[in-house]
Amino acid sequence: MIKVNDDYLKLRGSYLFSDIARRVKEYSEANADKKIIRLGIGDVTLPLAPSIICSLHDAVDEMGKKETFKGYAPDLGYEFLRSKIAENDYMMRGCDIKADEIFVSDGAKSDSGNIQEIFSKDIVVAVCDPVYPVYVDTNVMAGRAGSFDESIGQWSDIVYMPCTKENKFVPEIPEKDVDLIYLCFPNNPTGEVITKDQLQVWVDYANKTGAVIIYDAAYESYICEDNIPHSIYECEGARTCAIELHSFSKNAGFTGLRLGYTVIPKDLERDGVKLHSLWARRHGTKYNGAPYIVQKAGEAVYSELGKQEVKQQVAYYMKNAQYMSSHLKDMGFNVFGGVNSPYVWLETPDGLTSWEFFDSLLNKVQIVGTPGVGFGPHGEGFFRLTAFGSFENTVEAMERIKNDYCK
Amino acid sequence: MIKVNDDYLKLRGSYLFSDIARRVKEYSEANADKKIIRLGIGDVTLPLAPSIICSLHDAVDEMGKKETFKGYAPDLGYEFLRSKIAENDYMMRGCDIKADEIFVSDGAKSDSGNIQEIFSKDIVVAVCDPVYPVYVDTNVMAGRAGSFDESIGQWSDIVYMPCTKENKFVPEIPEKDVDLIYLCFPNNPTGEVITKDQLQVWVDYANKTGAVIIYDAAYESYICEDNIPHSIYECEGARTCAIELHSFSKNAGFTGLRLGYTVIPKDLERDGVKLHSLWARRHGTKYNGAPYIVQKAGEAVYSELGKQEVKQQVAYYMKNAQYMSSHLKDMGFNVFGGVNSPYVWLETPDGLTSWEFFDSLLNKVQIVGTPGVGFGPHGEGFFRLTAFGSFENTVEAMERIKNDYCK
Repeated sequence: MIKVNDDYLKLRGSYLFSDIARRVKEYSEANADKKIIRLGIGDVTLPLAPSIICSLHDAVDEMGKKETFKGYAPDLGYEFLRSKIAENDYMMRGCDIKADEIFVSDGAKSDSGNIQEIFSKDIVVAVCDPVYPVYVDTNVMAGRAGSFDESIGQWSDIVYMPCTKENKFVPEIPEKDVDLIYLCFPNNPTGEVITKDQLQVWVDYANKTGAVIIYDAAYESYICEDNIPHSIYECEGARTCAIELHSFSKNAGFTGLRLGYTVIPKDLERDGVKLHSLWARRHGTKYNGAPYIVQKAGEAVYSELGKQEVKQQVAYYMKNAQYMSSHLKDMGFNVFGGVNSPYVWLETPDGLTSWEFFDSLLNKVQIVGTPGVGFGPHGEGFFRLTAFGSFENTVEAMERIKNDYCK
Repeated sequence: MIKVNDDYLKLRGSYLFSDIARRVKEYSEANADKKIIRLGIGDVTLPLAPSIICSLHDAVDEMGKKETFKGYAPDLGYEFLRSKIAENDYMMRGCDIKADEIFVSDGAKSDSGNIQEIFSKDIVVAVCDPVYPVYVDTNVMAGRAGSFDESIGQWSDIVYMPCTKENKFVPEIPEKDVDLIYLCFPNNPTGEVITKDQLQVWVDYANKTGAVIIYDAAYESYICEDNIPHSIYECEGARTCAIELHSFSKNAGFTGLRLGYTVIPKDLERDGVKLHSLWARRHGTKYNGAPYIVQKAGEAVYSELGKQEVKQQVAYYMKNAQYMSSHLKDMGFNVFGGVNSPYVWLETPDGLTSWEFFDSLLNKVQIVGTPGVGFGPHGEGFFRLTAFGSFENTVEAMERIKNDYCK
């Protein structure tokens, strides 16, 4: 009799967003007349920009003609896209990253879930708390997490780095040595950022100890303040300790189109092995490249017109974030994030737990957010609202909270 | 210091098709005037059919409008596609497979590489020899293969099931009990098939012993003879022992568009666990769905017009296969496959090894095929040619072999 992977069986219940979807479904079935405003899941709502649509149509036409049809893509991505990424996201920012250090993929979720596979099962993983659940769950599935302690909501073998009001949501170096460190800035869920000097401390730590940093930069296009790094490669020495993940989902609205990339510098070696070659082998063996038409859409993001258009989309969402942030502050909420990020992270009022506040907002004013505790125990007492709704809905949501929740 | 996954380090050199690409590149650089005909890699050459192109354009337009824009897809695939698959590929063939037992993905290569992850590390894997390299390599990367024995070209912990002229390339049940059995029919690389009665023996074996069969049906649309199963679910009892993989690459030319699906019946349990729920969890945690526009293209494959168009494409390639098969036989080659499959599997002449024949064909007549030994030790002395070239090139290739190789 075959045996299943019992590390899968350790996984806790269903995924956070499935829980939310279930509660919302139950509520809306019982209250069909009520209009729900969804500021929970981080999905975009604006359509793809015209230059991207145009590029997709052109690429589709190429696929319909014998002379221009494209079969299997290069495993690591088309050169036309990788060179644009290297130029725009790195060279123009003074980061030394070459096109052949970039691996194009179907999105940052897949990459952030799969990247742990190139490391030994026997390593110590460190995550922020609160944290994007995929980092933890994929390490549970790989057998690195130990056992779950219900009383503290943590896995025995994972090192949690609290991100709190007190440390302004930037974690401190763990006391115990760790091997693989997941950092995401601008952060999901807190919406807070790390300065270049603070990030340099992590890079120095990783280089000193031989750890590796997985730097998730999915939200970098929302950064508008100075001295906040867009890439970890802005820090000195990051080429020898950091892997960076990028997404086209949040800057260009590709959540339904699926495109992302991972950077592994060729200088990054551990155990005498280039991590670049391990990831290349994984890509080559278990993946067959992102669709040509989607890679062409990605290229359009870097055209002059494309850059302007996606910048306007980011500005649209940031207007929502600023609107929520300022209005919630006016109502007396304790609010974080929302400045360099599409996420607003607020303290729940009246000592409510995250899920109590979730239910209360849903029932009283039909607004869906994400309970902070869903991201880890230090998320308890917090709540995430996203700026990805329409401006009209964002305004209405704030009106409802002000008029019907707060009074 | 972090440690890398040392099972990755056990992997043997580079992937078969990278080796071939390197030799061809070297040859063509040294012989720029020679026209090479590529019948090696299994990539299609016909453009996407008009109804698929039309559907892609429509879907792209939807992505450009606020009212019809699609963000994150359902993890397991859109209902509109899953129901078409269930209806056309299963119900119409009398197979009891429901839409919610189908997981849409970015292709059969990813699925065939990832599926092993839901099983324990401590299981015995059985593969055909010769075999599609991904089945073996992904189990090496997962630590199930043991050590490689250079003298016999096999991994110590993998059970190899020889597929030879003598057994007509259909493996026999292994003497030793095995847990996870990879079967691919019509077979890559041999192009040979299994009858329904022969497949029933495997299903009965798996149900009796508690093994699981991964049935790769990527080439089922090339079946034209009776009593050759298009799906393993045509066999009685397959719902309790088989997982089936499908691709849109070979029937509809999606190699560059990326779409496939995996079927896991809800009756399939091991260790008291539904494998369906394990795979659903993997999809939900490490994957974010195939692009909406590509799933719409998949739907178009099942329209009345789409069905006719892809049937014509399959017929085009099968004409090539038949042409190669009959002409090679006339020249005195010992030829297999090519009847229900786009692959022709021929015995190398004059006792040449597979790679000797590869070099000889490339140097004498500039034809690229795939050395059988690249698929495993029992592939030695064989050579694979694919029918995915143009008819003109296929004819020219046969002329060259007849006039310049054989004489």
